[in-house]
This record gives sequence, C-alpha cells and structure tokens, in this order.
Amino acid sequence: MKKVATAALITIGDEILSGITVDTNSSFIASELKKIGIPVKQIFTVSDDIGSIKTAMKRALDIAEIVFTTGGIGPTKDDKTKTAYAEFFQDKLTLDEETFHHLKQLLIKRKREHLLEINKGQAEVLSKAKVIQNDNGTAPCMVIEENGKTAICLPGVPFEVKPLVGEKIIPFLTEKYQLNHIVTRIISVVNFPESLLSETISDWELALPEQISLSYLPIGTRIKLRLTAVGNDKEALENELNDQISKLRPYIEGHVIAWDGNEIQVILKEILSDRNLTISTAESCTGGEIAKLITGVSGCSTTFLGGIIPYDFHKKIEILGVSPRTIEEKTVVSAEVAQEMSLGCQKLFKTDISVSTTGVAGPNTDEFNNQVGEVFYSIRVKDFEQTNRLFLPHLDRKDFMFFVAQRVLQDLVEILVKEND
Amino acid sequence: MKKVATAALITIGDEILSGITVDTNSSFIASELKKIGIPVKQIFTVSDDIGSIKTAMKRALDIAEIVFTTGGIGPTKDDKTKTAYAEFFQDKLTLDEETFHHLKQLLIKRKREHLLEINKGQAEVLSKAKVIQNDNGTAPCMVIEENGKTAICLPGVPFEVKPLVGEKIIPFLTEKYQLNHIVTRIISVVNFPESLLSETISDWELALPEQISLSYLPIGTRIKLRLTAVGNDKEALENELNDQISKLRPYIEGHVIAWDGNEIQVILKEILSDRNLTISTAESCTGGEIAKLITGVSGCSTTFLGGIIPYDFHKKIEILGVSPRTIEEKTVVSAEVAQEMSLGCQKLFKTDISVSTTGVAGPNTDEFNNQVGEVFYSIRVKDFEQTNRLFLPHLDRKDFMFFVAQRVLQDLVEILVKEND
Repeated sequence: MKKVATAALITIGDEILSGITVDTNSSFIASELKKIGIPVKQIFTVSDDIGSIKTAMKRALDIAEIVFTTGGIGPTKDDKTKTAYAEFFQDKLTLDEETFHHLKQLLIKRKREHLLEINKGQAEVLSKAKVIQNDNGTAPCMVIEENGKTAICLPGVPFEVKPLVGEKIIPFLTEKYQLNHIVTRIISVVNFPESLLSETISDWELALPEQISLSYLPIGTRIKLRLTAVGNDKEALENELNDQISKLRPYIEGHVIAWDGNEIQVILKEILSDRNLTISTAESCTGGEIAKLITGVSGCSTTFLGGIIPYDFHKKIEILGVSPRTIEEKTVVSAEVAQEMSLGCQKLFKTDISVSTTGVAGPNTDEFNNQVGEVFYSIRVKDFEQTNRLFLPHLDRKDFMFFVAQRVLQDLVEILVKEND
Repeated sequence: MKKVATAALITIGDEILSGITVDTNSSFIASELKKIGIPVKQIFTVSDDIGSIKTAMKRALDIAEIVFTTGGIGPTKDDKTKTAYAEFFQDKLTLDEETFHHLKQLLIKRKREHLLEINKGQAEVLSKAKVIQNDNGTAPCMVIEENGKTAICLPGVPFEVKPLVGEKIIPFLTEKYQLNHIVTRIISVVNFPESLLSETISDWELALPEQISLSYLPIGTRIKLRLTAVGNDKEALENELNDQISKLRPYIEGHVIAWDGNEIQVILKEILSDRNLTISTAESCTGGEIAKLITGVSGCSTTFLGGIIPYDFHKKIEILGVSPRTIEEKTVVSAEVAQEMSLGCQKLFKTDISVSTTGVAGPNTDEFNNQVGEVFYSIRVKDFEQTNRLFLPHLDRKDFMFFVAQRVLQDLVEILVKEND
C-alpha cells in the first residue's frame, strides 16, 4: 500500500465555540477529501486568537501532511488568521497586485467600488503563498508549501469555501499527492436494535480484512453500516467490498432497505425515479421538513409534485377535505385524521404516493390537549395505506420534527422495497 | 473579576471526521455552557481510537477545568471511549448495579429484555466515576473529578445528550463552580456591507471596555453584530451593554431590523405575535424551507396558518390560481408569477401576510430553460406587496434554498419594522 496523505482541519471562530453557528465547512471538506482518498485525522476548533491558531497549526502539521484552516480572514477586527499565518511561517503580509485587481473587479461587479480602500487589506497575502482567487468573496485562498507539508488558508463562509475546495484545491491535491483510493458503502438496516445487530454480525466483523473498516451510524431508527476500504487498487477494493457484503447478506437481509446510500431522501428519489412514481406531502407537525428533505435532492421535480402544510386545523378541512366530524370525535392528532390527510393529499396533487403527519411537536400541547410528542403518520402508495403512531416526548421540537421526517421517509422506502420483492 | 471556569469539548467519531455526520452536539453544549458563564476554549474532533482520545483528553485538561466528551460509548466494537477513559484515569471498568438495573428497566420498557445480556457492557463504568443515568439510551453518563478538573463522558446521540446536559450536567456545574455571567446581545444589520460597517463603527469598537467583545457574524445578507459581556455582576454587565448600544445606535440605526435576536424566524415570530398577524407561505424553489424555519419556533401555531409547495407548475395554477397565460408569457420564474402566487396564498389561507418563491435551485435548469440561480419572491402584507429578484448561480442547491429562505424572512422583518416606525 502506498503512503496515504492525511489531513487535519482547523476551524477558526468564536461563533462556533459559542454555539451560535454550526460548523458545516468541516464536514464538506472532509467528504471532498475522502473522495480522493485523503482521510481527516483530526479537527481543531479554536478561537479567533493568534496564539490558539498558531498552537493548532503546530499540532495539525505534526499529525498530517495537509492542513486546512477556515475562517478569520474577513475585513473586520475579529479576523486574525492571516496574522497568525505570517507569524507561524515567519513571513510577512504584502499587497498582491493580482489579488488587488481581482478584488477591484469584484467590487465593481457588486457596484461597491467605493469600498476598495477599506477592503485593501483583503489583498494582502503571505509573500511565500500561492494565491488562489475567490470568485465569491473578497478574501483570497492561500496555499503555503513548506517542509513537505501543505497549509491551505480558506475563508469561513460556506458558499465561498465550497467552490474553492471543489474546483481548485481538490484538483491541486490530486496532482500533488500520491493518493490512495477510499471506497465506501453504506447499508441501511431497520428494525434491528444496534446491540443485537452488533452481536449478530460479530463473527463476520472480526474476520474483516485489515483494509476494510466498519462503523455503526444510527440515525433515528435506521442504522447505517458504513464499510470503508482503503488501498491503491480501486477495482480490487470494490471487489473485496462486494465480497464482504455477500458474506454479510444472510445475517441482515430482511432488514436492509438500501444496500448503498447515505441520505434517506436520496435513496427514496432513486426508487421513485426508477419506477416513475410521483409523490406529494401533507405535513402538520413536521411543518415542511419532509418536503424540504425531498426537494433538497437535485432532479426531484420529476417525482415530487407538491406539498401542503395545513397547520391550522381548519385548513385540514378546507384544503384536504378532512371531515370536521373526524376531528371532533378523534381529535386532530389521530390515525383517522392522518389517513384522511394522506387521502386528500393524494387527490389534491394527483400523485401515486402521499404521506401525512399530524402530531404535537411541543414543548406546549395543542388546542385539543393532545399529548406532547404524540404523532400519527399515514403513507399511501396507490391503494395501499399504512398508519403508524410514534410517541416521542423526550425529543425537543426540532429533533422531533427531524426524527418524524426521517421515519416517514424510511418507512416509505421500506414499503416500496418490500412491494418490489 | 472572579476566575472563570472554562470548558473544552472532545467530539469522538469517525463519522464526523469523514463528513458523513455534522457535529451538532458541540454547538448545543457550547450554548448551554455560555448561558451559565462557561466559555468553550477549544473543540477537538478525533477518531474512535484510544490513543487519539487520550491525547485529546490530556490537551483539553491542560487548557480547561471542564472537559466534555461525546460519542463512542455505544454497544458496538467501534466504540472505544470508555476504555480510553479507564486508561487515562488509571482506573478500571466495573459493572455498576444501579446502572444495570436502569438498563434492565429501559429494555423492559422497550420490550427488548432479551437483549440484556448483549447490552451488559453498557452498565460498566469507571470505578471512580459519579454515574448519571441516561433516560433515553442504554449508555450512562460518567463524571470524573480529579485534581480540580472535571471530565464528563456523554453518549453521541443528540437527543440523549440534550436532556443529560440541560437537566443534569448544567445544574451540577452551576453548583460546583463559581461562575461568571455572560450577557450577549445580537444586533441584526442589513443593507450594510461588512467592510463598510466595520469602518463606520471602528472608533466605537476600539473604545469598547475590556469586558465587552464584538463579533461579526454574516448570514446571507444580514450581519449579526454580537456583543458579549463577561463579569460577576449581571446587572452591571447589562447596564454597560445597554450603554454601549446607545452609543452605537446613531451609526447604524436605519440598517437595524432587530436590536436583539439570533434566528430570523424567532425575530419574526415575536413581531407577528406582538401584532396579532397571521402568515402563510407558497414555496416553489425553496421547497418547504421557509415553512420549516417558521414552524421550528415554538408557539408559531397562533401566527402560521399553513403553507403550500406547488412544485409542479400545474399546481400553481390549480391550487393557487396563477394564470396559465402569465406562465406562458413570462415563464414560471418571473415577478408576475411570484406575485400571483403570494396573492393566491393569502386568499387560500386567509392570512394577513403571505410570501412566495419561484426560481431554479439547480444544478439543472427547469422545463422553461430559466437560468439556474434565478429566483423571484413576493411578500404581501395586507394590501402592500413587494417583489424582489435574486441571482445566485454560485450557490449549490441546499445553500440556494437556505439563502433565499433567510432573505425572504429578513425582508419581511424589514418591511414590518419600517411599517411600525
């Protein structure tokens, strides 16, 4: 096996440490690196503070060949990353003509040329840095190569980071390093408690060859089994993975809803597209989360025709044709209302499939005094219908919405997979 | 000023390092700690590997009094945190009777008593640990106090972490440490480029007293100015903050849409509740994201009556009454269609306010060959209507949906704030 280049990430910013912002850059960069066979060894999240940044750079460069920093290179006083780089690499910041020109063009395009003087500091870079222009922001990306290591200084705004990494850094690293391949498969297992699953496949797991590793990633009630193979012969890795999965198959077969795929909405979209099925959603307590997941997948418009969020109960009656009597007799959080909602939704959007949710996300109860955490959902696939109840009083509002949305899509995939068996 | 207890967080798990899972536990724990005056100094994200965990623990305990670990204490073979704790604290794992009893009760409740033997390892804890039972999962929380430092070992599943931290760890820390107060205010500034804003308020910023710090947090086109004051006299801190904000006011007044508040949907909800206004949404290219943001706020049901996602253009005609002729003449991505959608939405849900979006999230164009990244949105407040166009070809699908949703809510807040002036 060739030597694998490894990476470490440094996320810079008090807004991450104080919990105001969730760091999504790290997971994006890690995914992109994984595709070209560079594993991330560690992520350091540090304050906008020169000392902390320098210490993290030292440690990151000790454990990895490639170090990324994100954040702290904006025009404001709380941005200290470039100074930390200059001190760390014993270099100075100088105005870069090309960057200054690029900055000027960007400000002209945004009709903000009058801000050139204020932004001038953005065009200062380390004298030894290779500069990569940032088409979507005023701070350029810098690459410093020293002692066989590479440090990459990126801005913190996710939509600036994504094209810089995807279009510029990844091709650069692919060329520079002798890279290993990483091949991954994610198997989705349902109705199988994690501890029992672990026990059941224990012998198989212990016999896995050294280059293949296994992780358990539970999400809601689905367990994602991730198999990762690392090596320099891609085809051999894929064959080995397929071989291992064949051996695993008898242990878990009846519980698998997808033999590869991470996000449930992507797994669903593939099935719907393959079978030319259309879908619509009627969401009360999930408030649009299911529709948002489905529409987050590119190409969904051939299968997803629309959704309705009849939040107020009168809208369930007026728009979806739920019977006022059903609501009166069973209350709005009931199997019967869920069923009438999915039926009304299927008719309204004229789709093969419809799903509905009605429940109480909390923390307060609804006007009918239903229990916080109770939810009914109905899934309709042509003439088939299935209603389920969940009781999730331990989840806070956002986790409740997330859990229910995941579960509805997971159950729908399970129904579609079984139907096709 | 009293000595401030500080914390460091260690996130354990290959799924985070490989980019498959976004770490949300850290931001939750950091927010909770901030409320009781404990700042987070650093976050270490490491692999499920005993050596890495021990190294991170050593460094974390060097820089902070309190160290949290999350993850790696499940029943499967990739979970190594407890062994790392035992080695680090030179202790051994022993079966804890109370934990075993708790585990048994949990499995009985879940009708999985037959799994008790397999899960028995979950009841093993460090002999010197104080054990806190986990009501929502099989792995307990351990607290180790040694040499004036505290290490807290938590599971990795967010809905298990939240109640453990919120209900058990925070009260424990509040009692144990002499805590400082942290008071925060977040001011939302719009239509003010970050570099110009920074220049404009530069003199004020440089004159801020030592106990107050300022951060710039841009989100979409809104800049959140976060002021943080740390000290032992809460009232004095609040007075000082108010005083500083009074001084800041003249520089930014016309650009401020909220003098405090982090999430735009929470800011909006306060305004709508105060004024007894109702709202509905008609989303095409945002696919439910706006409704999801609004319904994520507890208590929204008095103001949000419902939403529609007429994804397929026929649904815009059938359900919202958009004219087929408008679509034919202007295409579906046009100011006119956005306007007819918000009008139709306002009528359908009978609300004071409605918002609509129509655009192409990409990466592929729509059936009308509209430009990827183009979007029109319309905001209607009673008889007032405003349409805007954005062109965001540089954003990927999810960022596009997020950016547009943020912007629509931001513009709505701006309209409502100005209306009230």
